[in-house]
Amino acid sequence: MVKKSLCVLSGGLDSTTATAMSINDGYDIIALHFSYNQLTQQRESEAFDNIVEYLKIENVYKIDLGFFNLIGSTALIDKSIKVPTGGLTDGVPATYVPFRNGIFLSIAAAIAEKEGASKIVLGAVEEDSSGYPDCRSNFISSMQQSINLGTKDSTKITLHTPLIDLNKAQIVQQALQIDAPLHLTWSCYQNSSTACGVCDSCRLRLRGFEIAGVKDLIPYSK
Amino acid sequence: MVKKSLCVLSGGLDSTTATAMSINDGYDIIALHFSYNQLTQQRESEAFDNIVEYLKIENVYKIDLGFFNLIGSTALIDKSIKVPTGGLTDGVPATYVPFRNGIFLSIAAAIAEKEGASKIVLGAVEEDSSGYPDCRSNFISSMQQSINLGTKDSTKITLHTPLIDLNKAQIVQQALQIDAPLHLTWSCYQNSSTACGVCDSCRLRLRGFEIAGVKDLIPYSK
Repeated sequence: MVKKSLCVLSGGLDSTTATAMSINDGYDIIALHFSYNQLTQQRESEAFDNIVEYLKIENVYKIDLGFFNLIGSTALIDKSIKVPTGGLTDGVPATYVPFRNGIFLSIAAAIAEKEGASKIVLGAVEEDSSGYPDCRSNFISSMQQSINLGTKDSTKITLHTPLIDLNKAQIVQQALQIDAPLHLTWSCYQNSSTACGVCDSCRLRLRGFEIAGVKDLIPYSK
Repeated sequence: MVKKSLCVLSGGLDSTTATAMSINDGYDIIALHFSYNQLTQQRESEAFDNIVEYLKIENVYKIDLGFFNLIGSTALIDKSIKVPTGGLTDGVPATYVPFRNGIFLSIAAAIAEKEGASKIVLGAVEEDSSGYPDCRSNFISSMQQSINLGTKDSTKITLHTPLIDLNKAQIVQQALQIDAPLHLTWSCYQNSSTACGVCDSCRLRLRGFEIAGVKDLIPYSK
């Protein structure tokens, strides 16, 4: 029987690498994309479409979580909160979206149970991340337990976060080893045609490529 | 400071009783209702509106989870699966919706974090339920831990399931003691103007009223 893996794929560097790793591991892929009224919704959706086409993934779920505008409280959704561009700082940043990965993983669990997927793959990164509590490995372990307790006894799901202990440079190197289509990814937090180069996500990405000693092929405005 | 309680309120017997108990406990209530393409979506939404008006709850979230039609796999959403009416049986029934409470609680957690609510109230019932894995108390405990690990360190949320160990007759008695508006609730799984009286949910409800020795005031077609 072919093993199925449900990959949460935003279209960014991390989730694209994690998905490509799962293909490399021999899994049949189900790709799951969320729109949640984030500023870059359309750009991320395009990146997702291009990546699944490139990776020849046919089983695709695109889910609209428009209700996130009622949650707001984050610079990624609420236009009155500015996306920080001054450089990385300690603590939980303004781009934190309340319990976003909890919501994403819960929906992923329902789809995995329906599809008979034994694995949910999430490109969460703890070490070199933006300080989001829902990217910590103790949260992921606890959520795996919750998912298995809250679904049928016959459903057994592993949450797989292959990048959780890597830094961005290691992720870039991993991606290059398995030919993940990094040129199709979108990481920037700002809604523009080219990546801004100065938001936390662009800074982490650019630093990763720099340390890995390779060129990032997507266009930047700065 | 007023303590805030976020109550997941479907408009059924259990969630209405749990919400009334939280009012009775002195909490400021935020009521959260989900539509998820279930057969009785409109009827449940009306019940919710009537109940929050009756209970004078002003802080209300109504969230549309239309994507549940992509999950399907349940008689409550997929019209090709028949709602069982032959009587209660053992095991997970056809009305099980994959990880529904996991999804509901994750979204509730995000809203509770935004609103600064210390408690999420869910009318889940383990003992006399329909055999749903996401109504078990070990799932609820695990989910509480996941929510606290996956939100800010300053966010502390308790999942409160005051009915989890009660049977339906005890819930009816509890509701009557605090004047919960049971006459406004809707429990039936079928989409009709009056409750069917024969689906699992109607059977559990009617048996509860019968054992409690009181009359159920909502109209039944059988």
